[in-house]
Amino acid sequence: MASDAFQDHYPDELSHCYGCGKLNQHGLQLKSTWDGDTTVAVYEPRPYHIAIPGYVYGGLIASLIDCHGTGTASAAAYRAAGREMGSSPPFRFVTASLHVDYLRPTPLGVPLELRARAVEIKGRKVVVEETLSAGGQICARGQVVAVRMPENLAI
Amino acid sequence: MASDAFQDHYPDELSHCYGCGKLNQHGLQLKSTWDGDTTVAVYEPRPYHIAIPGYVYGGLIASLIDCHGTGTASAAAYRAAGREMGSSPPFRFVTASLHVDYLRPTPLGVPLELRARAVEIKGRKVVVEETLSAGGQICARGQVVAVRMPENLAI
Repeated sequence: MASDAFQDHYPDELSHCYGCGKLNQHGLQLKSTWDGDTTVAVYEPRPYHIAIPGYVYGGLIASLIDCHGTGTASAAAYRAAGREMGSSPPFRFVTASLHVDYLRPTPLGVPLELRARAVEIKGRKVVVEETLSAGGQICARGQVVAVRMPENLAI
Repeated sequence: MASDAFQDHYPDELSHCYGCGKLNQHGLQLKSTWDGDTTVAVYEPRPYHIAIPGYVYGGLIASLIDCHGTGTASAAAYRAAGREMGSSPPFRFVTASLHVDYLRPTPLGVPLELRARAVEIKGRKVVVEETLSAGGQICARGQVVAVRMPENLAI
């Protein structure tokens, strides 16, 4: 596959996610890639992703942090195992907990950059720390605790 | 105003929020009300609010907890001040931090019930604790730290 995006390596049956599934036509279709030891994703909110005039809705920010976090967990788990992204069985993660600190209002109308790092990989659990920036200024920090999907959910 | 929903009392210029603004035609239009000392909101996800087949997207759950949390903060602040909801100046809150623990997969196709309580009201800050249930079973717990909107943002 030509794409470097983690989400483009998810099998089709795990590609319906509203935040990052390539098959969800109503969704955000977030794409995450490696940049050295960090992962990066860029998303430009739609005009209706508004909180108050001029600023981005916090629930969208949480959604972006969630999907970039589980994508980063997956990519980090493949890398730690010395495996190619997308090889079977799939390393697909769900979110056990999500924390977001909103440091300042996030301006609407510019691309948002997510950067993340897997700070702990232990058994089925990966802890990911993230920042979300607009115009080079960090507007939110997030932490995702991701857990490898139970086999009975990974259809 | 006939509606009991907190969000229907927000002034128009603060009613564009993607999660709960009555004027956002693309948004979720969440409605929260009092039930004794607890607040409640019900939302039925759309079929495309999917994580993996059969289950609700975690970012939507975070969004619902966020908006029900700031709505609860607003209503609790009015009640603590002995003021009618919607009276001026508006008590409108933004999210300082959001935490969600996903306890079990949330089934898609049924209404989700949010219940919340303001556990701390101190100065401009209100801490709200919440549950999100499907079919009477708690699927997620959340905490929102809400801060009364600075005057220069409350247009």
